[in-house]
Amino acid sequence: MKQNRTVARMKDVAEEAGVSLGTVSKVINGKPVGEEYVRKVNEAIRKLNYHVNSYAQGLKASRTYTVAVLMPNTYHPFYAMLTYWLNASLTRRGYRMLLCCTDSDPRQEQEYVYMAQQNKVDGIIGLTYNDQLQVSEDTPFVSIDRPFNPQIPCVASDNFAGGQMAAEKLADLGCRKVLFLRTGSSLNNEPNKRKAGFENGCIARGLSYEMKILSDGEWLTEEDIEEQFRAFLASRIHDGKPDFDGIFCVTDSLAFIVRRMLEEMGLRVPEDVQLIGFDGTRWLAHMESSGYMCSTIVQPIESIAEMSVDLLLENSMSIKPPLVCLPVTFAEGGTTRQ
Amino acid sequence: MKQNRTVARMKDVAEEAGVSLGTVSKVINGKPVGEEYVRKVNEAIRKLNYHVNSYAQGLKASRTYTVAVLMPNTYHPFYAMLTYWLNASLTRRGYRMLLCCTDSDPRQEQEYVYMAQQNKVDGIIGLTYNDQLQVSEDTPFVSIDRPFNPQIPCVASDNFAGGQMAAEKLADLGCRKVLFLRTGSSLNNEPNKRKAGFENGCIARGLSYEMKILSDGEWLTEEDIEEQFRAFLASRIHDGKPDFDGIFCVTDSLAFIVRRMLEEMGLRVPEDVQLIGFDGTRWLAHMESSGYMCSTIVQPIESIAEMSVDLLLENSMSIKPPLVCLPVTFAEGGTTRQ
Repeated sequence: MKQNRTVARMKDVAEEAGVSLGTVSKVINGKPVGEEYVRKVNEAIRKLNYHVNSYAQGLKASRTYTVAVLMPNTYHPFYAMLTYWLNASLTRRGYRMLLCCTDSDPRQEQEYVYMAQQNKVDGIIGLTYNDQLQVSEDTPFVSIDRPFNPQIPCVASDNFAGGQMAAEKLADLGCRKVLFLRTGSSLNNEPNKRKAGFENGCIARGLSYEMKILSDGEWLTEEDIEEQFRAFLASRIHDGKPDFDGIFCVTDSLAFIVRRMLEEMGLRVPEDVQLIGFDGTRWLAHMESSGYMCSTIVQPIESIAEMSVDLLLENSMSIKPPLVCLPVTFAEGGTTRQ
Repeated sequence: MKQNRTVARMKDVAEEAGVSLGTVSKVINGKPVGEEYVRKVNEAIRKLNYHVNSYAQGLKASRTYTVAVLMPNTYHPFYAMLTYWLNASLTRRGYRMLLCCTDSDPRQEQEYVYMAQQNKVDGIIGLTYNDQLQVSEDTPFVSIDRPFNPQIPCVASDNFAGGQMAAEKLADLGCRKVLFLRTGSSLNNEPNKRKAGFENGCIARGLSYEMKILSDGEWLTEEDIEEQFRAFLASRIHDGKPDFDGIFCVTDSLAFIVRRMLEEMGLRVPEDVQLIGFDGTRWLAHMESSGYMCSTIVQPIESIAEMSVDLLLENSMSIKPPLVCLPVTFAEGGTTRQ
């Protein structure tokens, strides 16, 4: 009996309940497991007054006041802005930021995870599409956009709501038949929910819709992607008339390219086709007066950064939220009718 | 006599020559000083076999393999790209990067300089417009775009050549009367040479030119800047006809804004007015196929990063070059006639 320990650990719970550690973990994380196990584990948790806190254990007493940030690069406008706000948030709390741009050397990511496990940095905030990356549940790690496991908090925009908002906006603006165009990682990640949200919105509003989805698993070059989307759009234009009147693109970058394609095909944006992107990219990131690159679902980048730092450094919560979705907004950017 | 010391220091030279440390420094750095002093100091340097290497002294044996990078922010496209390439170059050499975005807290910069002086980082690469920043000559520091003192290497594009190239290009493309528009720091910095280079090119090619220069010493908002340039341009348009046919803008961002203004005033770019910017900014930094935002003088960002890292970590040179200017190129981006 371990009731006299100051702080009960997960293995105390397993012992008390007479089950394996894995079973305790499954129960805590709501994964499917027999009813009898759920009862036993919950009883042990109550008895031992156990608090799930494996994550906070990573933040040891001897802090380095240094946090590693893993980011694919800093030149993509979304990553660039996110890096800036993470830096601002860490600096304000007296932390320094070790930046690792992982595009230039993907092997670096695992090394930073080891550093965190060895307390050479206090933790990691990572936006990574590396499907080889091993992050154990006791590593102080906050993931942006991609869930690892329920012990690793994941922070993202509410991508589902954003997709739905795009569909509803196009419906409000008079569209009847819309397209969804997507390219990107096929890994399990939060931005993939944009598609599901868009479908949901189309169905709710009675919009007819069609999807064209290119996966990066196919190893497409920029040129391949453009060519495939161009062919898809061309196949839907008959005698200069498109059989669609609205498009939701998975990113502003894709919307930029698609707008150019439509104009090359003799279609006017937004008169003939209305276009909504995703991200909230400005023409000039450093000048608000330059406006948005297209009508867009704006990601709350500053909040994503702030929440990620909060969750990493916060030490008093007994359970870290496994997934935090932050609200997005629509902004007009010249590719929809006002 | 100090000839038996393994390594002579600057103060040994001063003692041998019978002059002050300041005088030795002036002679080494080619600053004006009496001929007799130059002779004495050079004689002492030869006698002691002295190598100017104060900079390398900062790189102590106990390396941290960590370099601090000071950057105003990561969302301006030039800083975003520069941060990426610095990161790639450091990573390739087994170094980690502590990133400090100084816009969010300017007081941080001095703290990183102290860290470098205390060997908590191996050195600093900084792009800073902080005129309060104190960097002693023995601090391992490489500056980008702004010279501090001759002991601190400064790496920049060849801004003078870029300005001259812009003037020559406009002349080649048939311009007769051109404008130079500038806004930015009034601090002594390398990008300020764009103006002098442009003037030089105009004079060499017989172009008539006029300048409109707004200094940030005047604390102008984005709106103020736009208003002043708009008024300036409007004053030079009579009955819809401009008395100019070419403009060189100090940055691509300004060229973007000026192009929009010209179009609002009913002028066509490049048919009525040709426009050249500076930096080499693409519409989408992460997609080469998106092209340049305007016709532009392209900064060699990857080379600037590589050279800065080289100069910081390089330990075998007896004298570090005080200023390295790297070649720029012209790229067509739709705002000049082809």
